[in-house]
Amino acid sequence: MNSTDMNIKEFLDLQKQEMENQLSIYISNLTAPPVLKDAMSYSLQAGGKRIRPLLLAATLHAFGKDANLGMPIACAIEMIHTYSLIHDDLPSMDNDDLRRGLPTNHKIYGEATAILAGDGLLTYSFQLIAEDQSISPESKVKLIAELAKAAGPEGMVAGQIADMEAEGATLNLDELEYIHKNKTGKLLTISIIAGGILANATMEQLKTLENFAIHLGLAFQIRDDILDIEGEEEVIGKPVGSDSTNDKNTYPSLLTLDGAKEKLTYHTNEAKASLNAAGVDVEILDYLCDLVASRNN
Amino acid sequence: MNSTDMNIKEFLDLQKQEMENQLSIYISNLTAPPVLKDAMSYSLQAGGKRIRPLLLAATLHAFGKDANLGMPIACAIEMIHTYSLIHDDLPSMDNDDLRRGLPTNHKIYGEATAILAGDGLLTYSFQLIAEDQSISPESKVKLIAELAKAAGPEGMVAGQIADMEAEGATLNLDELEYIHKNKTGKLLTISIIAGGILANATMEQLKTLENFAIHLGLAFQIRDDILDIEGEEEVIGKPVGSDSTNDKNTYPSLLTLDGAKEKLTYHTNEAKASLNAAGVDVEILDYLCDLVASRNN
Repeated sequence: MNSTDMNIKEFLDLQKQEMENQLSIYISNLTAPPVLKDAMSYSLQAGGKRIRPLLLAATLHAFGKDANLGMPIACAIEMIHTYSLIHDDLPSMDNDDLRRGLPTNHKIYGEATAILAGDGLLTYSFQLIAEDQSISPESKVKLIAELAKAAGPEGMVAGQIADMEAEGATLNLDELEYIHKNKTGKLLTISIIAGGILANATMEQLKTLENFAIHLGLAFQIRDDILDIEGEEEVIGKPVGSDSTNDKNTYPSLLTLDGAKEKLTYHTNEAKASLNAAGVDVEILDYLCDLVASRNN
Repeated sequence: MNSTDMNIKEFLDLQKQEMENQLSIYISNLTAPPVLKDAMSYSLQAGGKRIRPLLLAATLHAFGKDANLGMPIACAIEMIHTYSLIHDDLPSMDNDDLRRGLPTNHKIYGEATAILAGDGLLTYSFQLIAEDQSISPESKVKLIAELAKAAGPEGMVAGQIADMEAEGATLNLDELEYIHKNKTGKLLTISIIAGGILANATMEQLKTLENFAIHLGLAFQIRDDILDIEGEEEVIGKPVGSDSTNDKNTYPSLLTLDGAKEKLTYHTNEAKASLNAAGVDVEILDYLCDLVASRNN
């Protein structure tokens, strides 16, 4: 690791830590029944890569802005991501007992409280943005509109429905990409776009960032699918081969493992090409792009 | 019914119809998987009193404003109310098969889709407000903050958790009122406050409206509890006596039926007294207050 990478790693570690502290503060600030706060906090604090908040911080950095400007939005996005995991893990959805090596929310708190903890996180995320004092009303409204669109019935929720409908069916590449672009892609994209909005990026720059984000999101998902085959159980936090056991449509099942790896390289290269066109200081975003493409968990 | 009441009834019927049309338009505008749109639409169109949108329209009318100004907010609030019913009815929560005499959402679409339909409605509600072109960014931010607070972990979600925790316990009046003030009261209150915000009400007027709303909300709940004993099954849309069967804490169980009726009169009178202090044209709000206190379903 060279000294630039060391600096980048320090920046990201610091951002991650500050974001996790801020998440704790947001929850402890709530006047709410203790069990609800506990259940919300449990999944928020269950670790994870925090890739979305880090992408937001890296985008602000690319535009020469203080990453702290994005803290409430980063926390809001992480809350929405966390709510989606809680609901996805429920018995009526993926019925997962483990998430990141820990019992899932409903295994600890029961289904009803898990559903409500998810509902609470989703609702609170919009409150956080609306109440933030450091952003103009115009920017807040734009961020809320874009975030709701990314997370709602035209975004993440649509992707989850499409994923459920695909169970047992064999998809083509377009259908598989529809799922991932919505289920995981749109929340990753808004993490980057939010940074652009906060930094007053031009429409052209926002378009470039969006292209970057879409390719990054697909690279992220392909890497996930590859890890399900090649990963180590204790590192990825779930049994290896569970996609195949669950008869899931994946890039390797559609394209072979080698084909999936080629596709990963393609999307990583496309992401980087978009990034270079943005005309900003992209080294941290570039680093995160490599991290997504080569991560082990 | 005198001619003023006729006019009020016409106003409310028209508002209700326009709001239901607008809800249909909002759903049909979505680019989303058909089953998701169907599931969201099913519960939105399953009828109901639409008391929250009507309170918003009546508040705008009280300030001499066009009720159409509140349409997106009214639809957003009705979406949030509907999502809460879908999630409350789930097997892990109240496990209800019927709602307003129709099969509940999960009985038609399955649990997973019902959860996602609720998530979709909640998320979309914030998008609707953020994207509305007829309100200033400042007002939108205020409305989103207040609505999220009312619906989230310090409001409706807190009330639902507290209600679940109270199962099997015997509550005192303060504990019972905490549940209702949060579970149903805060969304009723924001429906009225939103009208005040849109009409640029003074802080003092907003405070008066809030007092009105709190008493109205409690009157609403007490009437619900009384109807569970005295109502007719085909009119209330669920079996009479189900609260008692489910060992629920209610006003009649705590105060006797006569005591609950006295309490209903008390809160109705307090609501009306607050209303008269607001210095605006309150006749439709007054009419709705009577409707809440004497309704048969």
